[in-house]
Amino acid sequence: MTLDKAVIGLTAMPGAGKSVVVAVAKESGYDVVVMGDVVREEATKKGWEATPENLGKIMLELRQEEGKGVIAKRCVPKIETAPSKKIIVDGIRSLAEVDEFKKNFPMFTLVAVHASPEARFRRLFRRNRSDDPKDWEIFRLRDLRELGVGLGEAIAMAEHVIVNEGEYETAKKNTKEVLRKVEQKWTKQPST
Amino acid sequence: MTLDKAVIGLTAMPGAGKSVVVAVAKESGYDVVVMGDVVREEATKKGWEATPENLGKIMLELRQEEGKGVIAKRCVPKIETAPSKKIIVDGIRSLAEVDEFKKNFPMFTLVAVHASPEARFRRLFRRNRSDDPKDWEIFRLRDLRELGVGLGEAIAMAEHVIVNEGEYETAKKNTKEVLRKVEQKWTKQPST
Repeated sequence: MTLDKAVIGLTAMPGAGKSVVVAVAKESGYDVVVMGDVVREEATKKGWEATPENLGKIMLELRQEEGKGVIAKRCVPKIETAPSKKIIVDGIRSLAEVDEFKKNFPMFTLVAVHASPEARFRRLFRRNRSDDPKDWEIFRLRDLRELGVGLGEAIAMAEHVIVNEGEYETAKKNTKEVLRKVEQKWTKQPST
Repeated sequence: MTLDKAVIGLTAMPGAGKSVVVAVAKESGYDVVVMGDVVREEATKKGWEATPENLGKIMLELRQEEGKGVIAKRCVPKIETAPSKKIIVDGIRSLAEVDEFKKNFPMFTLVAVHASPEARFRRLFRRNRSDDPKDWEIFRLRDLRELGVGLGEAIAMAEHVIVNEGEYETAKKNTKEVLRKVEQKWTKQPST
């Protein structure tokens, strides 16, 4: 248990607009731990290219070998050694990961970012990265795959929800408000 | 397909405070269809008392016999025969139910109500109904049971999220804002 780290875990469907939240948290002194980096590091170790297919395969392997909370487990030392006392963890996808973080960091708060499927689709399509959905059906299948891992359960169990339909200033304001509430609660908790 | 009914489906974890949303919708001219009534009607038909245990058993039986979307399917005629053109359906718990409604009503919009687990626990405990959790563990198990049916997936895929941490006026204001947005979208759609 690490009592002196205050951790926010971020969870969201693809394209929900987590990046605004991460940016605002950074500005507010948070260090960022990206859960996807664990998988990318594993790819590098194997000498594999970081294609979506390879990353998906590695993710599956890791889960089968070390359990559903494996990615969270591997983020724990990253959080412990981060310089800041306040950390934001980007990319929580299941309650198993939430449990892993809570076990290690009593001051852990789960925050969800929400956008409508339409807004997420527009955002991913515009972003046009290599793994982006080119049409609604592929987008829908990707959503269902993420939900299959347990992403919806994490979202439903969040302490706070930040709605991000695309108005940057609104999302920024809502994020600041949520960070204020989370930090207010942290200062009330005994932290040795 | 029923083109002339505009339907809002409400989904939320237990104790998230859907009742505010239903009340505001009623005031705004919506008829209310409660999905749980289908199960209660089935209990009456069987001559069973409507205890949580019996209702749970009936729910399970109905799903096994007629599929995951059974409760939604049985709500379709209730929606079709409701006097108002605007209907709010209370108690969606899975994407299978969402699909069932979308198939029947092209103007269907999914709205989630969100509250933190703490706020939901406080609310259920205070409400003190017969099926309310008496302690955190029972509360947690009930959450996990609901998530097991697919409730988290429905919440994650909602078009709109109304946050209801307990400030009545805020929840009311947010609901009105969401109803306005939903109705604005409906008026843009062709409804023959």
